[in-house]
Amino acid sequence: MCPLGSGESVTSSVVDAQAIDLRVVQRQVDGVLEDFLSEKARAATGRGHPPEVVQSVRDFLAAGGKRIRALLCVVGWHAAGGQGDAASAVRVAASLELFVAFALIHDDIMDDSASRRGRPAVHRVMRAQLGGGERAERLGAGGALLVGNLALTWAQELLHTARLEPGRQRLVHGLYDAMLEEVMYGQYLDVMGTGRGADDIEAALRIIRYKTATATIERPLQLGAAVAGAGEAVMDTFTRLGLPLGEAFQLRDDLLDVFGSPDGACAPGLSDLREGKRTVLLALGLGLADPVQRERLGHLVGRAALEEREAAEVRDILQVTGAREQTERMIASRYEHVLRVLDQAGFPQAADRALRGLAAKATQYTS
Amino acid sequence: MCPLGSGESVTSSVVDAQAIDLRVVQRQVDGVLEDFLSEKARAATGRGHPPEVVQSVRDFLAAGGKRIRALLCVVGWHAAGGQGDAASAVRVAASLELFVAFALIHDDIMDDSASRRGRPAVHRVMRAQLGGGERAERLGAGGALLVGNLALTWAQELLHTARLEPGRQRLVHGLYDAMLEEVMYGQYLDVMGTGRGADDIEAALRIIRYKTATATIERPLQLGAAVAGAGEAVMDTFTRLGLPLGEAFQLRDDLLDVFGSPDGACAPGLSDLREGKRTVLLALGLGLADPVQRERLGHLVGRAALEEREAAEVRDILQVTGAREQTERMIASRYEHVLRVLDQAGFPQAADRALRGLAAKATQYTS
Repeated sequence: MCPLGSGESVTSSVVDAQAIDLRVVQRQVDGVLEDFLSEKARAATGRGHPPEVVQSVRDFLAAGGKRIRALLCVVGWHAAGGQGDAASAVRVAASLELFVAFALIHDDIMDDSASRRGRPAVHRVMRAQLGGGERAERLGAGGALLVGNLALTWAQELLHTARLEPGRQRLVHGLYDAMLEEVMYGQYLDVMGTGRGADDIEAALRIIRYKTATATIERPLQLGAAVAGAGEAVMDTFTRLGLPLGEAFQLRDDLLDVFGSPDGACAPGLSDLREGKRTVLLALGLGLADPVQRERLGHLVGRAALEEREAAEVRDILQVTGAREQTERMIASRYEHVLRVLDQAGFPQAADRALRGLAAKATQYTS
Repeated sequence: MCPLGSGESVTSSVVDAQAIDLRVVQRQVDGVLEDFLSEKARAATGRGHPPEVVQSVRDFLAAGGKRIRALLCVVGWHAAGGQGDAASAVRVAASLELFVAFALIHDDIMDDSASRRGRPAVHRVMRAQLGGGERAERLGAGGALLVGNLALTWAQELLHTARLEPGRQRLVHGLYDAMLEEVMYGQYLDVMGTGRGADDIEAALRIIRYKTATATIERPLQLGAAVAGAGEAVMDTFTRLGLPLGEAFQLRDDLLDVFGSPDGACAPGLSDLREGKRTVLLALGLGLADPVQRERLGHLVGRAALEEREAAEVRDILQVTGAREQTERMIASRYEHVLRVLDQAGFPQAADRALRGLAAKATQYTS
């Protein structure tokens, strides 16, 4: 996924538009992560633990990522009327980024993805360090699995040390546990669903719902709001925002992976096509294709050795069938939906502007 | 490991010896797990989640396990002077059993173990359901990895809903997070250590320290004590108990896997020998062997297709070299150490008796 893959920040274009300086928020979140992992590195040295575990997590975080969940968490705190010191919200936000690291490291093991965020995937790095071969493949996957597990454990530790107000702890923990469960079921559906028909638009959307809508948008916003002691109304608004914004966000990612970004900041890629990822874009293409085009898509998509020339043919089919345009329309309608929800939400102006800026950045990808 | 593999309970022989009825405790823990997972099954049905995920965790728990950690947790609560309703301690104890399920399911994926607790390992079950072959192998491992992750998430949910007294929550969470980190580092050392010399007794003991002493004995006892609001003294006593009892427990498991139990309740196995598990028993054998015996051990141990006849030869070498007897002596000295620590601890009589009973059961394996 190019946006997550790139180190490019979502904050640049929205910071001037409102009073919550998202660049500052991102620095605060990254600061918490750096301090926490530095302490973990010191502790590992002291106990004779292998240093490469902490280093793998640090490298993963340093490789980029838009910190979208962390930013939404802190903005959710502001939207719910959070006042004064945002330290607890920032710590929960940092926890979310370690949770994402865990989820992506495990995803890459299961898909045996070669790269992530423009660098070799963690299990591939470990495999290479072990010198390659069958044993290195097994140990690399095992080592990366445990690095992922430690990232999740540390995410929980950040959550447990966020100094939440006792009355709000239960709701925050409940939301966090719900998020983890939803993401894991989503990954399960994703992994086990590879036998599913590639033209199943509903199935593709259901995976987005679990993996992106809830985990990337709704829960981070709600977690920040819960830290601020938000009531039902704010939580419901974030639930209504989660699905359209999450779907638009993912549909944009799918388009970017295949076609790159209009401004060329993100180049067209081969990963989704080679992996045969069951995207809405592909499902639409198969649905709109004539028999010949459909046969070509079936023949090309999912080929591990797909060449650029063949990828260009796939892009051409997704273009001429109208699948690309249809996906753009789906994004636009969901973005409009997001704006309508925000119009009715009546959030504090700074939070409202920050949310609109993040929504535009995440779905329109105009840089 | 036969003891964990057998459904046999540790409670049978100690229940008459003291006033804490461990059979009742085990039923309470299993009841919490059953209610919790039944609710998860209902929720999965309601949300259209695949039912086999919850079922895999249920089957894993139903297959047996001694619930040693859960029992130690509740006994730790009593030892720390826990009074009245033990519901919070029992819920934390149940959480520990889901954590164990997570750890063992992931262990089996990394080792590609064929069986666990006398049944096929979770990833093997899923692989078989997928019809076998390369794709089924990949998806089976991925599915089991996610089942393990959900077991860990649910362990955290049980912890988060244990209704701990606010003042004690921080300590309980801190101990729990420390336990997870220690276990994962231990697994990491274990997985990455397969290149290590099989005669490295120190290395074998270090893995026991992380994987068994802390996670199986010390932390469960301390978690129960923390729920009861224990002070430093009790925590220190459990730290002093953890290492000798954990080592004795693991050394007994290693002997049982290779030689079975004296009373025949547990048959000699092939799993550790075929896997080439780096046990203290094997390290002692290699250290005490003459060049010919050493060559035979190196030739036979770790052979996936090791036959019973060959296993008998290995057992004979471990016997005649004195490695088996030496391991028994290590267990005995550690058990004596445990009793001395308990003599000085001054725990309430019921807790003291329960701890002595559990220590005897876990290390002497007299049934």
